[in-house]
Amino acid sequence: MARINEHYRKLARGYLFPEIARRVAAFQQTHPQARILRLGIGDVTLPLAPAVVEAMRRAAEELGTQEGFRGYPPERGYDFLLDAIREHDYAARGVAVEPDEIFVSDGSKQDSANIQEIFDAGARVLVTDPAYPVYVDANVMAGRTGEADPQGRFPGIVYLAAHEANGFMPDPPAERADLAYLCSPNNPTGAVASRANLERWVAWARLWDAVLVFDAAYDAYITDPALPRSIYEIEGARECAIEMRSFSKRAGFTGVRCAYTVIPKLLMGTTAGGERVALRDLWARRQSTKFNGVPYVVQRAAAAIYTPEGRKQTAEQVAFYLENARRLREGLAAAGFTVFGGAHAPYIWMKTPRGLSSWDFFDRLLSEAHVVGTPGSGFGPAGEGYLRLSAFNSRENVAEALARIGRAFGGSSA
Amino acid sequence: MARINEHYRKLARGYLFPEIARRVAAFQQTHPQARILRLGIGDVTLPLAPAVVEAMRRAAEELGTQEGFRGYPPERGYDFLLDAIREHDYAARGVAVEPDEIFVSDGSKQDSANIQEIFDAGARVLVTDPAYPVYVDANVMAGRTGEADPQGRFPGIVYLAAHEANGFMPDPPAERADLAYLCSPNNPTGAVASRANLERWVAWARLWDAVLVFDAAYDAYITDPALPRSIYEIEGARECAIEMRSFSKRAGFTGVRCAYTVIPKLLMGTTAGGERVALRDLWARRQSTKFNGVPYVVQRAAAAIYTPEGRKQTAEQVAFYLENARRLREGLAAAGFTVFGGAHAPYIWMKTPRGLSSWDFFDRLLSEAHVVGTPGSGFGPAGEGYLRLSAFNSRENVAEALARIGRAFGGSSA
Repeated sequence: MARINEHYRKLARGYLFPEIARRVAAFQQTHPQARILRLGIGDVTLPLAPAVVEAMRRAAEELGTQEGFRGYPPERGYDFLLDAIREHDYAARGVAVEPDEIFVSDGSKQDSANIQEIFDAGARVLVTDPAYPVYVDANVMAGRTGEADPQGRFPGIVYLAAHEANGFMPDPPAERADLAYLCSPNNPTGAVASRANLERWVAWARLWDAVLVFDAAYDAYITDPALPRSIYEIEGARECAIEMRSFSKRAGFTGVRCAYTVIPKLLMGTTAGGERVALRDLWARRQSTKFNGVPYVVQRAAAAIYTPEGRKQTAEQVAFYLENARRLREGLAAAGFTVFGGAHAPYIWMKTPRGLSSWDFFDRLLSEAHVVGTPGSGFGPAGEGYLRLSAFNSRENVAEALARIGRAFGGSSA
Repeated sequence: MARINEHYRKLARGYLFPEIARRVAAFQQTHPQARILRLGIGDVTLPLAPAVVEAMRRAAEELGTQEGFRGYPPERGYDFLLDAIREHDYAARGVAVEPDEIFVSDGSKQDSANIQEIFDAGARVLVTDPAYPVYVDANVMAGRTGEADPQGRFPGIVYLAAHEANGFMPDPPAERADLAYLCSPNNPTGAVASRANLERWVAWARLWDAVLVFDAAYDAYITDPALPRSIYEIEGARECAIEMRSFSKRAGFTGVRCAYTVIPKLLMGTTAGGERVALRDLWARRQSTKFNGVPYVVQRAAAAIYTPEGRKQTAEQVAFYLENARRLREGLAAAGFTVFGGAHAPYIWMKTPRGLSSWDFFDRLLSEAHVVGTPGSGFGPAGEGYLRLSAFNSRENVAEALARIGRAFGGSSA
């Protein structure tokens, strides 16, 4: 009988979000009357911007005509989208990125899961802890780790704890790694990296010849113009960093599926024999073999985000969610909770009350307040004792969730 | 410096189709007046069916409303699409498939590249030769092979030659493999598997406890109702076969991106310790970690293929391409070429004239007739001496290509 990839068996039973969905469904089944408020998975709620809808509608109609029909998309994306990205996301901030350093994809989740494939099986991986689960899981599935310890740490991965004392944005360690995943604004903690912090990471990467995978999926939520939105705003980053950006949270594209990854041509890896190889070329080979491009209608939708109307409309969506985040943060603080994040990110990182574990608080929040959060421990051992709340919801639901949490757990000190 | 995945370096310089694009672009640059006819890459040319366009347009508009907005798609696909697949592609042919055995994806290329991930690194892989390059390349990149020999064969992979004597549909070998990729209707040869051939493969897989990966991306081109369109029409296949289907060639979706993979729950792999594990569950874990679903507009477009209008309109597209295939096959035969395929597939597999190598014939066809084909050797060593022509083109271009090939090479005997 065909042998399976047993590394999969090292993972916990399910990916975090399906496990949450399972518990919520089970609760709903036994409590059919409960109106559950979902602040767990970070999924957007506002309808697509009119400029985006119009672009998709027109693209669909174009594909129905002989002149407008398009087959396989170009491998890295259509020029109209690559050019818009280069101009608005980079040149406008003084950052030079070449169009052929940009790879349009169907999601940052996929890109952050797949990027490890171009590195050696023995690569030493570093994550900040807590972290988006895909960074670790993809490396576990690829066989880079041993079995998890009782806290859920995988031997072979360097975990760098993000906690209150370091503002949930750890500085680089005094040890080597080959591949370090950084996320700012951070999922799940809602913290944001300062320029100084990123400068230390770039210096560390250049010292140890490491590669930074900079996940900037939430860059649109940065409200302070002095904060870097791209790692390439840091001197030297083009020689050590890969950057990932997404339209999911910036324009409500979670169900439209579009993102991109930048790999500068200067960024090199090495063979065992010491030959230097451009990582950009390896990724191009990976994508041309194992990917087939993003739908034309989706790329047209993404390009519409960069038009004057698209920029205005999507900025309003982001502002709406940020106002939700502010209300959650301030409302929970007023009710006596210890909360972080939510200023440059759509996530609130709250300490569980009364020393509850993350999953215990998750279960009690679900059963007592009918509110769904995401257990911090699902993002890594250092997330234990925290819960993530998402600001992607209606104003009414945010207010209602605040009221319910206050009633069920108010006056708690964490 | 971070070490790279050196298995990538075992691959030829580029993926086949980008290499063709490179040569064509170079020729066009030096011959700007030449009107090049592209019968190389298998990319559709007819506009999307009206039912599909209308479904996409409506889905886009829906996403612009508060009631109609949808975020992350369900992991395996929306029920409306899973149900349509189950009913029309399977139940209608007497095959029982459960909705949760179906995984909607953004392409069969991706699925056929990724499926190897759920198997052990030591899995013994079998391909028929020539084959769609992704089957081999994905396994090379995963480290399952040594360096290619001068003919391009990778040690560690079992190559089963498809040639004129076996009708380009080899029977299973007398040896073991863990994972066997089969493709019918075949890309690149255009051959189609008989029921008896598939029965022998299922028997072989059950004898050796192997898993068949049955790529049926071209099933819509089967014109003989007695030929199996699904491997699950063969008794016992649910215990040994994974099936992949695509909307790319069936409905002109190469730029829309939608496909699906079926993994029956009965299909098991094993751990080193002998524990049996459902491959369906491993694939579900892989997809939930490394994929994020197919856009709503795309799934609505795919579901529209199953409506009465959608079925009629897409059947007309397939019939149009099949008529092109017939004209190519008969026209080339009349001009003295030896040709295969093209009856249940959109591909013609022609012997190169005068004993030319595949790439030599490719280059001469390009420079002398301004026609682009795909060199057979790009699909594997047994493809040497052949060239694939695609029937995805206009009637006029097919006629023109035939005339040009006839002028340049006519009267040749292969």
